Amino acid sequence: MYDLIIVGGGPAALSCGMTARKRNLRCLVVAADAQTGWLYKAERLDNYPGMPKVSGKELLRVFRAQAQELGVEFMGGVARQIQPMGDSYMVLVGNDVLEARAVVLAMGAARPKLLPGEEELLGRGVSWCGTCDGMFYRGKRVAVLSAWHGGVEEALFLASLASHVDYYTMAPHTPPADERIELRGEKPLRLEAAEGRQIAVVTDGTTSDYDGVFVFRPAVAPDRMLPGLKLDGSFVEVDRAMRTSLPRVYACGDCAGQPLQVAKAVGEGNIAAISCAEDLAHA
Amino acid sequence: MYDLIIVGGGPAALSCGMTARKRNLRCLVVAADAQTGWLYKAERLDNYPGMPKVSGKELLRVFRAQAQELGVEFMGGVARQIQPMGDSYMVLVGNDVLEARAVVLAMGAARPKLLPGEEELLGRGVSWCGTCDGMFYRGKRVAVLSAWHGGVEEALFLASLASHVDYYTMAPHTPPADERIELRGEKPLRLEAAEGRQIAVVTDGTTSDYDGVFVFRPAVAPDRMLPGLKLDGSFVEVDRAMRTSLPRVYACGDCAGQPLQVAKAVGEGNIAAISCAEDLAHA
Repeated sequence: MYDLIIVGGGPAALSCGMTARKRNLRCLVVAADAQTGWLYKAERLDNYPGMPKVSGKELLRVFRAQAQELGVEFMGGVARQIQPMGDSYMVLVGNDVLEARAVVLAMGAARPKLLPGEEELLGRGVSWCGTCDGMFYRGKRVAVLSAWHGGVEEALFLASLASHVDYYTMAPHTPPADERIELRGEKPLRLEAAEGRQIAVVTDGTTSDYDGVFVFRPAVAPDRMLPGLKLDGSFVEVDRAMRTSLPRVYACGDCAGQPLQVAKAVGEGNIAAISCAEDLAHA
Repeated sequence: MYDLIIVGGGPAALSCGMTARKRNLRCLVVAADAQTGWLYKAERLDNYPGMPKVSGKELLRVFRAQAQELGVEFMGGVARQIQPMGDSYMVLVGNDVLEARAVVLAMGAARPKLLPGEEELLGRGVSWCGTCDGMFYRGKRVAVLSAWHGGVEEALFLASLASHVDYYTMAPHTPPADERIELRGEKPLRLEAAEGRQIAVVTDGTTSDYDGVFVFRPAVAPDRMLPGLKLDGSFVEVDRAMRTSLPRVYACGDCAGQPLQVAKAVGEGNIAAISCAEDLAHA
């Protein structure tokens, strides 16, 4: 069991991890590749104090090395679901269920844009989790719609169960190369309920029906990830101590609001770690 | 006229200045020597992201150079008084009166401990400002009680007016070497009203009466500096955007509350600069 699981791998997450380690908390950073974030692509930052004229990539490299040196643990993946479990939280990352006394949300401001029809059909033939729902489609026809390479592994897993897998690419990445998986070149535009409880994937020109449709993206909306979490517009609602509406759940960085700046994210990560250390000491 | 005067020279102040420059604000950092702060003496910080295992002194050097490169202006001195003046603020620094459209308080958490009797007698023979009140003591006997070297210049100025100047050292620094100034070895314990509207400086063993007593410290309490400023305990009250109870006055870093951490101060300085840029754009 971790003291703290930090969801996200940017400046807020890494700053939080560093200070959590200084407070002797065992902590795990769960993040998909940093390469997907805007910061990684930033050519030059001028106003992060201490690192003049640094690229986003270099800043992330230095932050991560420093966090590692301080004993922060790392896991690649997307935290998909977080469940309160009495005094702790269960965090679902890929196939793994992890447990922590506290959770820090630091997954950035990227809010996945859903396809028309996706939310309404979720749990009715549309799924975001191959591990959770794959078994229901044994011997059936499924589609995988993926916005990142994380969908590749899921598609391979689904191919071992389903009779047929179509793979649609929603954002640039290398699709799976596997004879059991058919690559579709069209871009999905929307999902629709079809005859016989099937789901139709509609593209510009084609409509294909499936028993199940799996959608994979490198981000999950915070209130989807953690039901009951209070939002403030599209951001997670926090107080000045970075506490959210749920006990021992904190948010920091871009997901906690404007301004979307590295220095602000670093400061909030630091505050979140200290609030967490205080709360765990009194728990 | 400056867009922004930042009171204090630590991480919050410098971070604020950097981001203010990126928003094209003309800004001035007003601070006494950095050497007086706790950070300057910190041997090693581990959890400021991007500068692993850095000394406080080195961190301040790098921050300051970066701020200077971005065009932040600097002035040595203590901001003693801030006055609203319609749409701007007047800031009294030593002999200079400066004007700015907005003010950021980033003077740290050090709250000067007053001598017993000091606050009650302020304006009734006790003064914190040689420049302001020196003229009233032409040809009279005055005492200077100083906690830092900033009192030396004030004592020399007072010696040019008063008939006699006694100099008491309240914290280690090099006292003035001037034949018009008598150095007193005793440590002041309290101030008392004495006969004939005189002020008595009481030490462990001596009591000396003066027409005027001047007290100099490297910090001024925020609500003394800026009357009407709302406090929260001993900190300046701010919202998440770092706005205080007064228009176009922001606070960040240690003076704005716990935790007293460099990363937190840097983040808050960044936020204060952005809030200020927004408010000035709409002013």
